[in-house]
Amino acid sequence: MTQNLPALVTLLTVLLQFGTMWAVGHARGKYGIEAPAVSGHPAFERAYRVQMNTLESTVMFLPTLWLAAHYGYVFWGGIAGLVWVIGRVWYAMAYLGNASKRGPGYMVSMVGWAAALVMGVLGLGRALLAG
Amino acid sequence: MTQNLPALVTLLTVLLQFGTMWAVGHARGKYGIEAPAVSGHPAFERAYRVQMNTLESTVMFLPTLWLAAHYGYVFWGGIAGLVWVIGRVWYAMAYLGNASKRGPGYMVSMVGWAAALVMGVLGLGRALLAG
Amino acid sequence: MTQNLPALVTLLTVLLQFGTMWAVGHARGKYGIEAPAVSGHPAFERAYRVQMNTLESTVMFLPTLWLAAHYGYVFWGGIAGLVWVIGRVWYAMAYLGNASKRGPGYMVSMVGWAAALVMGVLGLGRALLAG
Repeated sequence: MTQNLPALVTLLTVLLQFGTMWAVGHARGKYGIEAPAVSGHPAFERAYRVQMNTLESTVMFLPTLWLAAHYGYVFWGGIAGLVWVIGRVWYAMAYLGNASKRGPGYMVSMVGWAAALVMGVLGLGRALLAG
Repeated sequence: MTQNLPALVTLLTVLLQFGTMWAVGHARGKYGIEAPAVSGHPAFERAYRVQMNTLESTVMFLPTLWLAAHYGYVFWGGIAGLVWVIGRVWYAMAYLGNASKRGPGYMVSMVGWAAALVMGVLGLGRALLAG
Repeated sequence: MTQNLPALVTLLTVLLQFGTMWAVGHARGKYGIEAPAVSGHPAFERAYRVQMNTLESTVMFLPTLWLAAHYGYVFWGGIAGLVWVIGRVWYAMAYLGNASKRGPGYMVSMVGWAAALVMGVLGLGRALLAG
């Protein structure tokens, strides 16, 4: 199990992306927002911001997760990654309903990311010193 | 050849990104859209949506491709990746001309992505069961 | 040191993402732009464009960096990556102040990316020829 945890988190991250993309497509249909428009109804705009913010966050998160795993934090990096995923799902579901509710899930995801970042920095720092 | 297929697909994905970025810069010049604006002419807005959608899709695709490859689906994961790239090029070229033509290429790319995803899930599932 | 250079560049890239995200949040507060809006003040729009352009560029860059490293260009790929990071920081800091100043840093980052791309293409081409 342990050694596959970062891969499992990566898979969950991909499914999260898919979910936020699906929510945008759904809102596009429901509110009649024709592509290439990305505005026109508050609920559509929230879905679009959730997708974009999840994207931005994923591009910061996946390299951090794999840095931590690469430098030996396979289990704890994976646990931090699960925290990130949980925070991101919470963020997305709360934001879709109400932009002002996006805070707590966002904070949880940042804690998970920051924990993985610390592991990556420690591992890299040790490798540089040993090198 | 086989064992380098995921790397070849990754390189093609990077070149696809560059192509969509170039199309946005070209449209910015052609229609006189000064940065930081991202609207002002339908052809520019289509180019910008193509770039953003390609970006979103790439962030879902590359981790999926490498999960499949990591769990042993190097050749078939690579083939699924080529299908994704072909669908994405078709999507981009069709959408640049007319937003309503973006469907078929999009569907092809999703088939490629879904195939790679199934491989990743099977491989990860097997690894988790094996302990 | 050498063999950890691509990982160091990856870490710097993650921190750069964080910096551009932070600048958007800061501008959101300073100019009173409530989410999900992504327009409303030129300085906020510049910060948002810096974040998005950095994101787009990162999704092209990190796979290229790791292709180069994977095919043996660990040191020179890492150096090209450092050039990319320096160009990106310059770009971000210049663009935040004035959109018309974004050119030089952008060009430097593209030189770093193109150098890593050439290494990836050479390495992959050699691997494909070797069969």
